[in-house]
Amino acid sequence: MAISSSQQDSRPLVRQEIAAIAGYIPGEQPQDAGWTKLNTNENPYSPSVNVSKAIATACEGRSLAKYPDPFANQFRTQAADVLGVRPDMILCGNGSDDLLTILVRCYVGAGDAMRVPTPSYILYQTLADIQGVLCDKVAFTDKWLLPESFTSPNTLTGEPVRLVVIPNPNSPSGTLLPPEQLLELAEQLPCPLVVDEAYGDFSESNCLDLVEQSDRIIVTRSMSKSYALAGIRFGFAVAQPAVIEQLAKVKDSYNCDAIAIAAATAAIADQDWLMKNQSSIRATRARLVTQLRQFGFSVVDSQANFVWCTHPEFSHKEIYESLRERSILIRFMAYSGWGDGLRITVGTDAEIDVLLGAIESIMQEKKQ
Amino acid sequence: MAISSSQQDSRPLVRQEIAAIAGYIPGEQPQDAGWTKLNTNENPYSPSVNVSKAIATACEGRSLAKYPDPFANQFRTQAADVLGVRPDMILCGNGSDDLLTILVRCYVGAGDAMRVPTPSYILYQTLADIQGVLCDKVAFTDKWLLPESFTSPNTLTGEPVRLVVIPNPNSPSGTLLPPEQLLELAEQLPCPLVVDEAYGDFSESNCLDLVEQSDRIIVTRSMSKSYALAGIRFGFAVAQPAVIEQLAKVKDSYNCDAIAIAAATAAIADQDWLMKNQSSIRATRARLVTQLRQFGFSVVDSQANFVWCTHPEFSHKEIYESLRERSILIRFMAYSGWGDGLRITVGTDAEIDVLLGAIESIMQEKKQ
Repeated sequence: MAISSSQQDSRPLVRQEIAAIAGYIPGEQPQDAGWTKLNTNENPYSPSVNVSKAIATACEGRSLAKYPDPFANQFRTQAADVLGVRPDMILCGNGSDDLLTILVRCYVGAGDAMRVPTPSYILYQTLADIQGVLCDKVAFTDKWLLPESFTSPNTLTGEPVRLVVIPNPNSPSGTLLPPEQLLELAEQLPCPLVVDEAYGDFSESNCLDLVEQSDRIIVTRSMSKSYALAGIRFGFAVAQPAVIEQLAKVKDSYNCDAIAIAAATAAIADQDWLMKNQSSIRATRARLVTQLRQFGFSVVDSQANFVWCTHPEFSHKEIYESLRERSILIRFMAYSGWGDGLRITVGTDAEIDVLLGAIESIMQEKKQ
Repeated sequence: MAISSSQQDSRPLVRQEIAAIAGYIPGEQPQDAGWTKLNTNENPYSPSVNVSKAIATACEGRSLAKYPDPFANQFRTQAADVLGVRPDMILCGNGSDDLLTILVRCYVGAGDAMRVPTPSYILYQTLADIQGVLCDKVAFTDKWLLPESFTSPNTLTGEPVRLVVIPNPNSPSGTLLPPEQLLELAEQLPCPLVVDEAYGDFSESNCLDLVEQSDRIIVTRSMSKSYALAGIRFGFAVAQPAVIEQLAKVKDSYNCDAIAIAAATAAIADQDWLMKNQSSIRATRARLVTQLRQFGFSVVDSQANFVWCTHPEFSHKEIYESLRERSILIRFMAYSGWGDGLRITVGTDAEIDVLLGAIESIMQEKKQ
């Protein structure tokens, strides 16, 4: 271990890979009131009333002074019951981003690559950059399907693919690949397939059942969207126990706090709340899609709590900016070499009315 | 990016470095009642009453459905005011372990080394193992000081040291190196010096003031111990703004949850609570040390909320086990090639009475 006396040089002290990146920029999170916030796919409703009760209980006496259960077994037991898996098939994390970080660190080392479809969740590239590995992005077809080349060997470069991540439903499109196809893909791959089901509770089908069938499939879930708990940071991975055991080595010892564990457990136990919420979101989504199409937008059929749309005549960036001036936040997304569009979170009916009214008025202004 | 069809070989799919490690084993966290828990340096008192009020407010309405502020600016502003630094010198994390993870990932890449003193916090080795880098452990002198060799060049191996971490006060010893010495060390080093002040609120001096003087010094702090908030997972780093900017690239977008931010902000604002708590802990610590010495233990003077002791006649492991049978948890720590001993958290006076009574009776039994 060579340690030399300090030289005041200009070389940044951080790793070159870190110095080179800009860092992931999350969607805007204004902390002041007065915004119609349809930009980061939060649930527009309050979580189950059981959540605040569970939080109050978790704060009693000296509870907060103690470390939480490192494995959040209270949640694992409850979630296993609800999802029909075993507790040892679940690993909890500080949001599903924590689990994605753990997965990249666990499987992809220097000189390796990970593969993801694009356009999809832009965090995947950031995680690869931080890890100093290649993020091989393969474009979806224009119908948001995986192209042949997603699985085909490519011998031009040598980095072996050690992890494949597919968001399903995908963001920004809201489209879903059928579980059968993902199982088939997993069987062809030399590495694990992570199915990122951050939006899985809003879709018609999911890949949870495949985990029993294949030790190559790892499903990640988030409590942020479907359980209206973005503020508490809780997600989990479902995989075979031997896989969970490896992932657990990479997590922080106490990655989930006591309050988040209590809140998430109460939330997942209240499946009535989930079903009512799903049906509200789906109904509002249908109305939003219909109206946007009437405005001339091309809207992809969505299985998530957001919709992706483009317009043949108007600049997406200008629509985004005009809405922002009206204190309405949606997401303008531009993907290098691919194009851009607008991703709109399904809010409450009232929020969507505000949005649609504003879009109509912006379109009229621009036409004049 | 070479992707080849699946071969059912026995090679583990995780990175070799991950397959090889056992993973960090945190101190035992029994979830049932009835234990006198003096093993993981938790604060024995309830946090400031302002904490539960702040948590209740943070749960109101739709708050939990929204993502938290990615940079926890509410906390940064409050902490900056209390600590006499600027808000942009603070980075918040999901416990100070999160910050240690960020630091290792930010500074130490494949082929690099980090240097730490030993015996100290065993997580440092785990973080190096996960990152796949060398953890160069240099033994403290028998007076718990840094030996000459801590800074001397060692050209036998070539891995350059990219990060030095020194816990101060140190665990398990509870000893403190003077800030002047650490500033001098930082000036000699070719890399940042992380001063891990997880126990800094219990000691007579700390290194916060050095951060303005040196861009090589990064101080990490935890709210777990001194603010009695181990359950909420909140820590922070203090460094010059250019350093914070680099570290921020590696953190998860929303690494601190809304409730933890609210709780930590309320806690650090209540400095009266902190001062009263510090004085209780110090008084109980003095009593514990005196009594252990009367029992024949050799006890290191501690600047933390725990004490490190050894006994010339009795097996440390047997004392630990006998206490455990009586539902009293302390920490038995064995360091390869160094020796072992007992680390005892300073609990309430009542808890310490229970412990001392049990030790006395165990010693009598063993003498017979």
